Amino acid sequence: MNPVRMAMIGGGPGSFMGPVHRRAASLDGLVRLVAGAFSPDEARNRRTAEETDVPAARSSTDAIALLDREAALPEDERAELVSIVAPNHVHAEVAAAALKRGFALFCEKPLARDIAEARLVVELAASQPERVAMAYTYQGYPMVHEARALIAAGAIGDLRRVSASYTQGWLAERAEQQGNAQAAWRTDPTRSGASGCFGDIGVHAQTMIEFLSGEPIAEVMADIQAAVPGRRLDDDGGVLLRMAGGARGALVASQVCAGEQNRFEVALFGSKGSLRWAQEQPSQIILTDAAGRATTISANPAMMTDPAARAALRLPGGHPEGYIEALANLYRAFAWRLRGIGERPFPLPGIDRGLSSLAFVEAVLESSRTRGWIAVKS
Amino acid sequence: MNPVRMAMIGGGPGSFMGPVHRRAASLDGLVRLVAGAFSPDEARNRRTAEETDVPAARSSTDAIALLDREAALPEDERAELVSIVAPNHVHAEVAAAALKRGFALFCEKPLARDIAEARLVVELAASQPERVAMAYTYQGYPMVHEARALIAAGAIGDLRRVSASYTQGWLAERAEQQGNAQAAWRTDPTRSGASGCFGDIGVHAQTMIEFLSGEPIAEVMADIQAAVPGRRLDDDGGVLLRMAGGARGALVASQVCAGEQNRFEVALFGSKGSLRWAQEQPSQIILTDAAGRATTISANPAMMTDPAARAALRLPGGHPEGYIEALANLYRAFAWRLRGIGERPFPLPGIDRGLSSLAFVEAVLESSRTRGWIAVKS
Amino acid sequence: MNPVRMAMIGGGPGSFMGPVHRRAASLDGLVRLVAGAFSPDEARNRRTAEETDVPAARSSTDAIALLDREAALPEDERAELVSIVAPNHVHAEVAAAALKRGFALFCEKPLARDIAEARLVVELAASQPERVAMAYTYQGYPMVHEARALIAAGAIGDLRRVSASYTQGWLAERAEQQGNAQAAWRTDPTRSGASGCFGDIGVHAQTMIEFLSGEPIAEVMADIQAAVPGRRLDDDGGVLLRMAGGARGALVASQVCAGEQNRFEVALFGSKGSLRWAQEQPSQIILTDAAGRATTISANPAMMTDPAARAALRLPGGHPEGYIEALANLYRAFAWRLRGIGERPFPLPGIDRGLSSLAFVEAVLESSRTRGWIAVKS
Amino acid sequence: MNPVRMAMIGGGPGSFMGPVHRRAASLDGLVRLVAGAFSPDEARNRRTAEETDVPAARSSTDAIALLDREAALPEDERAELVSIVAPNHVHAEVAAAALKRGFALFCEKPLARDIAEARLVVELAASQPERVAMAYTYQGYPMVHEARALIAAGAIGDLRRVSASYTQGWLAERAEQQGNAQAAWRTDPTRSGASGCFGDIGVHAQTMIEFLSGEPIAEVMADIQAAVPGRRLDDDGGVLLRMAGGARGALVASQVCAGEQNRFEVALFGSKGSLRWAQEQPSQIILTDAAGRATTISANPAMMTDPAARAALRLPGGHPEGYIEALANLYRAFAWRLRGIGERPFPLPGIDRGLSSLAFVEAVLESSRTRGWIAVKS
Repeated sequence: MNPVRMAMIGGGPGSFMGPVHRRAASLDGLVRLVAGAFSPDEARNRRTAEETDVPAARSSTDAIALLDREAALPEDERAELVSIVAPNHVHAEVAAAALKRGFALFCEKPLARDIAEARLVVELAASQPERVAMAYTYQGYPMVHEARALIAAGAIGDLRRVSASYTQGWLAERAEQQGNAQAAWRTDPTRSGASGCFGDIGVHAQTMIEFLSGEPIAEVMADIQAAVPGRRLDDDGGVLLRMAGGARGALVASQVCAGEQNRFEVALFGSKGSLRWAQEQPSQIILTDAAGRATTISANPAMMTDPAARAALRLPGGHPEGYIEALANLYRAFAWRLRGIGERPFPLPGIDRGLSSLAFVEAVLESSRTRGWIAVKS
Repeated sequence: MNPVRMAMIGGGPGSFMGPVHRRAASLDGLVRLVAGAFSPDEARNRRTAEETDVPAARSSTDAIALLDREAALPEDERAELVSIVAPNHVHAEVAAAALKRGFALFCEKPLARDIAEARLVVELAASQPERVAMAYTYQGYPMVHEARALIAAGAIGDLRRVSASYTQGWLAERAEQQGNAQAAWRTDPTRSGASGCFGDIGVHAQTMIEFLSGEPIAEVMADIQAAVPGRRLDDDGGVLLRMAGGARGALVASQVCAGEQNRFEVALFGSKGSLRWAQEQPSQIILTDAAGRATTISANPAMMTDPAARAALRLPGGHPEGYIEALANLYRAFAWRLRGIGERPFPLPGIDRGLSSLAFVEAVLESSRTRGWIAVKS
Repeated sequence: MNPVRMAMIGGGPGSFMGPVHRRAASLDGLVRLVAGAFSPDEARNRRTAEETDVPAARSSTDAIALLDREAALPEDERAELVSIVAPNHVHAEVAAAALKRGFALFCEKPLARDIAEARLVVELAASQPERVAMAYTYQGYPMVHEARALIAAGAIGDLRRVSASYTQGWLAERAEQQGNAQAAWRTDPTRSGASGCFGDIGVHAQTMIEFLSGEPIAEVMADIQAAVPGRRLDDDGGVLLRMAGGARGALVASQVCAGEQNRFEVALFGSKGSLRWAQEQPSQIILTDAAGRATTISANPAMMTDPAARAALRLPGGHPEGYIEALANLYRAFAWRLRGIGERPFPLPGIDRGLSSLAFVEAVLESSRTRGWIAVKS
Repeated sequence: MNPVRMAMIGGGPGSFMGPVHRRAASLDGLVRLVAGAFSPDEARNRRTAEETDVPAARSSTDAIALLDREAALPEDERAELVSIVAPNHVHAEVAAAALKRGFALFCEKPLARDIAEARLVVELAASQPERVAMAYTYQGYPMVHEARALIAAGAIGDLRRVSASYTQGWLAERAEQQGNAQAAWRTDPTRSGASGCFGDIGVHAQTMIEFLSGEPIAEVMADIQAAVPGRRLDDDGGVLLRMAGGARGALVASQVCAGEQNRFEVALFGSKGSLRWAQEQPSQIILTDAAGRATTISANPAMMTDPAARAALRLPGGHPEGYIEALANLYRAFAWRLRGIGERPFPLPGIDRGLSSLAFVEAVLESSRTRGWIAVKS
């Protein structure tokens, strides 16, 4: 297959997601980086361009200018896909610009800083949903898809309760004042948006719950805080949930739990059993039946039922695949879709996922402020 | 040591806690069952008396009558300690009667069906706190004490977040209509009190959080339900917490999560690390430091810091002790206290624990009803 | 049930197994300690007698004298069961004396220091096998019986490989020179026998393999050593095995692996799956099917197939039972057998288990000495 | 950095390692596939060339011819590195040819089918050891290097015992007769060499033990078999070990344990503690101290001591990296070495590793045949 040509927005020196996206995109040889606006800073932009073998002519400190330039190239040469990995405040504007110019769009979450800001992107995407995807990396783990398939097939019966906990410790102290670029922009309202922790990781928990259960969160009761004195955005919080189908839940997200790495764990409990998945052991799910037998199902076609999830594996059972591979699954699925290839379409997170995250965060913020239950806008 | 003579109230055929208490009491040879009102039913009471070698003359279907009779026996013969393991509605009345007659009291939780009902017991206990203990079995696990000691010594820094989840599945269906005696009384408001799940297991989570952190829960926001149609008491729920010291928390309790056995897990997160304990692996705690190193500390004096917890172990490291041993630790500590023995007093749950659980449950019920935050009465 | 009256030989101050046996015997109220020769030392013997409420008249520093005295008591008063928990060199003589005098015998392993010494006991037991049991405590765990039942029912297909590893660290240094009484006699050939580690814990691994697989070890190739300089008996070793049915295996036993507590783990691999059990988590087995699905089966009747194993549980699923309960299962089964009670006979380790352990140890010693394969005498 | 140009030998349709190597090589953008002899079959070779974007002119069905052709290209165009992923019988001949023609060599294990066959490669490599590496993928896991560093720094004291177990189930039945190409050549002596299971996976266990302990295996006592009837090479076996430093060990390797995926686990026990690593959870090691505290150390610079291991991580703690990343670490280290870049040289497995594996396998085969201990040639 002729690799899909990609332009990257963001991902300069010090970026977390930039190198991850580049590695994920290249892993299967289906996507090739050809252009980039990696940083608004001239020297920094150049540095990343050189490191990634992107020619100076196809690199710019100005994302919009780059898109214009690419759009002017011959059809078989110009970038086809724009991947946005810059800080949050850049997302909506660049996403809209990319769609307007006819590029396919792969956008890191969030879609925008808030629903209002997202509006134009949503409108532009409406007529071409197949050309837009959101980089919810955790949706790229094959066992997450297997879990969803098992639940959809009735493995745990009627859903009664969901639990999600996403705890990190990297903001346990004021890293934003100690030269940590990631911490700096993520705790800054002008660049991150109205929420810190919930916008950053709470939405992963929300998306996972909704994806696995197949139903939206209907109502939230939240209690969020900036636990570390002086911080302007939430860095910790808990939420009670009511799912659209009536199940109840609890969701915790925190970035101030010292020593926690990236512990994202989710459990769904039903009338016939339960299902658990934990991001730090992503190749396993634990399915418990009504008698209590807890079966660990691993990333291995012999144990899996979901064709797309099976097809997403690159290695035999017992050979761990990880986070980069998960994101690569999204790139691969997108590349196949853009090329019209792939018998077993791996469902990609679309713009609706981006929107539902924004709605969730807004409800959480309002609930916490008003100390009452708030319905999530759908 | 001359064993402490015990009278048991409740614990007849079909009882869960009766045999557990009898085994726990006898494990170390420090307590001896000498009398009992095991069941209001004549035949059933007799059956348990025979099985437990309690002479007919010291057994009765009427708890108060039994206490009267015991009180009339010579001082060196009569029961010294009354253990209450009957359904909840019996607790307060019998507890008060026991205290009035000069018996030491070991009472299964709850202390009463509500705070009002508890009042008389509390008054009677006020002048003799050392002669009253509550059977919060999970407070008998040595590693729970070790955890508390570590936290008190600063191992996790300032507390920021607590998480407790207690999930069971034994009420996933309407077991109360299928001949399950336990299910029948526990789902019946007249015998169980105003709460089902939260009164039964939610309070274990509340007590554990307060014990480990050393501070009370100040405020709750709850969402409880009877998930199984037709049930009159809550069988599932979630609670957001604010601790007196400012930390936030989430607490889940459910008895309708099919396949869950007795999964009671708690985690405390601080500014320097975290600590985890899970009831189904009670001999271990996991202490994580700020760098993320997760150290499993096992029930073994070589790894422990708390003298009372170390002294409570009966076996060398690696030889599992369990639930009966945990309860036996409470009995042993109580027997030692009553005899004035024991250099390393193992702290016993007192009547204040019983009261704080009742206050917690009342706050949870009110919060869930009003859909708002409620302060817990202290 | 009228409790079985027990005399204990050994178990004085400092004994590990003495208190364990007393607790296990009393746990279910089916066995009562009435007599004891706890220690050859007068003061020490008296101390334990007092602590255990055994009257001076039924206590002695001389085991044989005690048995004589007990035998002379009226039939409904004298001890019925003799439990031997003294150091190894005492076992055979006392066991023979007990059988000769008509007592039932419950003997800690080993049966004797070697096969020759065991001969008389074996002869005396031949006519009354139902009145003799060996205290292989690990055979008292319900999940071990469940595992055996699953394997016997074909759950793992034809056996191909067995692995057992039993590692401890308590002899990592020369504890025998630091006042550790346990270490002193266990590393002393005159009291322990010709083997240290293999006689002490290697035989647990051997017994477990044979019990679970249902077939004897046919041949061994061993490499044992005294890893700690100056020690006279083996404290570490490895063995290659050939099972009677053709499967191969490896068995490791060590007491010098610093930091290991009592890590006794066994795995059996077959043509259709595998089964794992670990003593430090004794209430679980993991059954893996041919596709790789690994199912954790817990001590809970709802998950178990073996009636005797189910009946041996005292608590609902999720309430841990441990090592004392395991030994108590052997006492209970023995008490029921002596009283002719119990519909679901829990198979007790008999004298044949004691013999096969002795044969195994002799083969291991000879193999290690000759550096060649040795057949195990059956 | 200007990517290193690579020619691949083997890795055509159906190959396991081919795609893994290609992904690993491209992951960091430091190595670029430019030529290949993927398969001796014309159509199959062409198919892989097309899928990998290798021009027809730089692809061939004949490995030697391809090397000749590449060698004739201009210096800045021709392949610099030859990666051999073909079946075993091809390794030595192609490796020698590559070295003779001046290519750097990255060779899948084994180096050859036996020591004799390896001789020429060893001679050619002697003068340029820096230009030869062996693809022992498991040596690419950062935590394996961290483990080695900890052990070298004395974390477990003096080594006393090693345990390694590598169990798979994919040959539990005669897959070689069911169209499984991998199974076909790996069970065929002419293509695989004199050993099946031990040559394939036993050597990973041997290499890991030697790497972690820092000392060679001196002597072996083996018992290997073809457990599945009709198979010509060993598919299962156990080995007792004596390390050069005196520690003892046991090593199990099997491919017939149904349901086992790729369970490769190793433990080293010392006088002060122990260390465990398991391939299926490769980002963690467990270090146990003499008191029994078991600390899980994760792939996270904050917890690690080895600079090269820390530098090998691509993601923050808690974001799993897997098998492809491990192999990519070897490629990256090799690319950096060839380009003279990299402050923290990640030690690459060299030709000595290949040789020591061959010596180990020969000793295992001879020991099993003679049923006696055999010294491993060094």
